[in-house]
Amino acid sequence: MERVVFFISDSTGITAETIGNSMLAQFEGIPFSKHRLPFVDTPQKAAEARDRIRRSFEATGVRPIVVNTMASLELCEIVAYSGGLMLDVFAPFMGPLERELGVARTGLVNRSHGMVDFAKYEARINATNYALSHDDGISIEYQMADLILMGVSRSGKTPSCLYMALHYGVSAANYPLTDEDLEGGELPARLRPYRDRLFGLTIDPQRLAQIREQRRPGSRYATLEQCRQEVGRAERLMRAEGIPSLNTTHVSIEEIATKIFETFGIERTLF
Amino acid sequence: MERVVFFISDSTGITAETIGNSMLAQFEGIPFSKHRLPFVDTPQKAAEARDRIRRSFEATGVRPIVVNTMASLELCEIVAYSGGLMLDVFAPFMGPLERELGVARTGLVNRSHGMVDFAKYEARINATNYALSHDDGISIEYQMADLILMGVSRSGKTPSCLYMALHYGVSAANYPLTDEDLEGGELPARLRPYRDRLFGLTIDPQRLAQIREQRRPGSRYATLEQCRQEVGRAERLMRAEGIPSLNTTHVSIEEIATKIFETFGIERTLF
Repeated sequence: MERVVFFISDSTGITAETIGNSMLAQFEGIPFSKHRLPFVDTPQKAAEARDRIRRSFEATGVRPIVVNTMASLELCEIVAYSGGLMLDVFAPFMGPLERELGVARTGLVNRSHGMVDFAKYEARINATNYALSHDDGISIEYQMADLILMGVSRSGKTPSCLYMALHYGVSAANYPLTDEDLEGGELPARLRPYRDRLFGLTIDPQRLAQIREQRRPGSRYATLEQCRQEVGRAERLMRAEGIPSLNTTHVSIEEIATKIFETFGIERTLF
Repeated sequence: MERVVFFISDSTGITAETIGNSMLAQFEGIPFSKHRLPFVDTPQKAAEARDRIRRSFEATGVRPIVVNTMASLELCEIVAYSGGLMLDVFAPFMGPLERELGVARTGLVNRSHGMVDFAKYEARINATNYALSHDDGISIEYQMADLILMGVSRSGKTPSCLYMALHYGVSAANYPLTDEDLEGGELPARLRPYRDRLFGLTIDPQRLAQIREQRRPGSRYATLEQCRQEVGRAERLMRAEGIPSLNTTHVSIEEIATKIFETFGIERTLF
């Protein structure tokens, strides 16, 4: 029996969805049908949301789950009449926080995913542009890089760099190890001055071959033999040069970023 | 007085940080010093985290705030001895969810930011590759696009496309309106078959000139006059062709994505 879940918010709904997904992940095997109701910031929109949740209840006969991050108590009350199971994410913590900090909450719309701090937002965008323009090993302004990811083609460097830039404003460059680099068996000359900012990504050859086969079917580049040879050489190079590395085969970009930040002691928090 | 906040998690800490940031945003004017303690998944690591929080308490004399998403009650108890103000994010909701769903939570480490669903993860990576290779208006495999963002250079198209791809697996192409397109005053021929997937981004000319000036100082491209002309023509084109659009000047990529999904009725939720 599929359970319907609504994420309701006066802003993007990203916070509601993030915590909602984490909680629902604790109930494996139950299929959830998830819906986001963002920008619910007027009584009119709250009434529309309430009606939509109520219709779902009536249609399925099963109580919908409502994960709610609206700041306004007035709007929360309107939606509470939907009949759904209301999980008010902030409610249990606001009292303790107010007492601890000695001030009342503002009650303003949750703008944590809006452009609150313009300088920080600009840093994210600039870092993203940096990652995009240092994604090929050709541009060499590595002195600007917070860190440099190295690895063979399709080991996960590009999405990881983009994620770290978009969410943390970390300027991450990307150096694809070429056959020439790998045959040499030494750190490429242009990377040597930045040794303390290098991080290696590696991957199981079987998985790499699958990914490359999708991209260039039937190519030598995608053969298991070629992948084995490249990965083996890359891993030997990283070990020999003492470069920290991570196997990305079963690891998401969120986990890759977190592990890299741990390695370098980067305590950058989400913008 | 700066308040120290720890986000503690048995996984990446992204959920703890996301909800923590949203709650702290309700207390404007208080400076917070934020620290993430990820991958706390053994009693040993929990004891280290407890000691670190306790040292912060002793050093500052002010109780740290601890936003906690660890699933294991055993680990939560260890950290509770830190003396910090414990905000256990999931605790208030797990009982109601268990009763509603009729099953007990698994209590397993929160893997909601890990590679739980491989097919979904692959869709994110494939969409990111699509966005990267359709970022210039030259590639023309628009039949594959879920949507196409159009706008003048530096109106916010690229980071928005990357964000939608990385987090929602939405394949978004990016069409930069050229002078030639704008002089013509009509929808470029190659976009016409995809009219129902087009979304326009626009921006205040003053802000656009600032962004362009950073990129190409002193160029004609960055003059206010040029920006005014391009933006004016682009907005007229979008209006004339009935293309939905959004002014991105004060809007974050998270908000842009959410508004675009609303416009197209895309109910895609976060992976």
